[in-house]
Amino acid sequence: MIKHKDIVKLMEKGRERKKTGLYIAEGKKSVMEAVKLNMVEKVFVSESFAADDKAGIMEDIAESTVYEVLDDKSFNELSGTVTPQGILAAVRMFDRTAADIIGTDRTGSIRLLILENIQDPGNLGTMIRTAEAAGYDGVLMNKGCVDIYNPKVVRSTMGSIFRVPFAYCESTGDIIDICKENNIRVYGAALGGTDIREEEFPDSLAFIIGNEANGLSQETLDMCDSLVKIPMGGSVESLNASVAAGLLMYMSNLKYL
Amino acid sequence: MIKHKDIVKLMEKGRERKKTGLYIAEGKKSVMEAVKLNMVEKVFVSESFAADDKAGIMEDIAESTVYEVLDDKSFNELSGTVTPQGILAAVRMFDRTAADIIGTDRTGSIRLLILENIQDPGNLGTMIRTAEAAGYDGVLMNKGCVDIYNPKVVRSTMGSIFRVPFAYCESTGDIIDICKENNIRVYGAALGGTDIREEEFPDSLAFIIGNEANGLSQETLDMCDSLVKIPMGGSVESLNASVAAGLLMYMSNLKYL
Repeated sequence: MIKHKDIVKLMEKGRERKKTGLYIAEGKKSVMEAVKLNMVEKVFVSESFAADDKAGIMEDIAESTVYEVLDDKSFNELSGTVTPQGILAAVRMFDRTAADIIGTDRTGSIRLLILENIQDPGNLGTMIRTAEAAGYDGVLMNKGCVDIYNPKVVRSTMGSIFRVPFAYCESTGDIIDICKENNIRVYGAALGGTDIREEEFPDSLAFIIGNEANGLSQETLDMCDSLVKIPMGGSVESLNASVAAGLLMYMSNLKYL
Repeated sequence: MIKHKDIVKLMEKGRERKKTGLYIAEGKKSVMEAVKLNMVEKVFVSESFAADDKAGIMEDIAESTVYEVLDDKSFNELSGTVTPQGILAAVRMFDRTAADIIGTDRTGSIRLLILENIQDPGNLGTMIRTAEAAGYDGVLMNKGCVDIYNPKVVRSTMGSIFRVPFAYCESTGDIIDICKENNIRVYGAALGGTDIREEEFPDSLAFIIGNEANGLSQETLDMCDSLVKIPMGGSVESLNASVAAGLLMYMSNLKYL
């Protein structure tokens, strides 16, 4: 059973997360989403949280999982946030493949975000959050992306990590292959692409966003069905990766929202 | 004259920046933009940078400002980045008011981004960068926003800090007043607003984006000409502030790009 001292390891070490299949989610909303999904291994709360639980959360937790109360000082030392809410949980990882998300016997249309070598935890979390808001159906990542279970990513998804289906794949090439097999048109975001205002987007599509500093790899650019670019004024060379992802997802999906 | 030890103070202390009217910009592109604008007080380069200067940057710098060469170890200790480029500069702050930016004898249309209590340096920098890309004419901030001359903000503008006109104002109310006096329609981003797809945007407008956690203050909401919202699917409660700003600016300005 998870102990107090395991929490820090799970927060700081990707290796520990991989070994145990667990990660840490913080805050009332996130923990309760995980409880609802029946994916919580153990909840930790601070004494103050347990004592001042007007919403009856402790009761909900006790019904469905195990928990431990820590004194406030110990809890606050554990927490990755500046203003801890007094509740966190060790949560079991999702176990989904790209095929699960695409649904190989799917009949309707599908819209996906593909990420290649995204390095900034805040960017990854924001993109997951925006994917849900834009009504996208899933996020597929190559192995070069930062760990989605890193606490900074989990936090910046604002709970969307529990609601947006996602999967890691060996390579971007593998992701593009499975998209093509399923008639999903693959668009790469690249400076040399067609202005998105001139593009007629099909119902089933995927956008690939590349690394913050280097964009998409040449191999990936070569495999895309089309390359598109967001028009830019001034002397700007590129947009922030999460802003670019937000614009592409919203502009292609506004009619479905 | 600025010394080596002043750089750290200018990077870390807002008070020091305010007292001297100087801030630190890092990297070849940013320093050269500042040199072009004739706003550099002094450049610092590492020995390696000076020795390996194929682009002849040292010559350009020597022509227009003073510089000092630091040994690599000292330079890298100063730098705020993980992979320092070997060049940074102490730069003089801009001295612009909202009236300068709006141009009270302006005849054409104008589009502005207004920011209230934005706290995250990365968000502020990204919004300045996106404002330039979206063809916006300026950014006005209330005093509750994070310091734009904070090195994290400067860095995440990716050079747009030198190209997008901006000013701090005492309050958001003052900013809204001067917009209204100049026939600029003021839109607040708020969950209760009209869906942006139903809004016909005029040529001269301003969007106000509020604090990351709390949105716009009630006082500001009351003063806006209209409130708009970006449609959101799923259970998302809000978008990341820079993604929201990017969507509003692009969707209102695509025809001008």
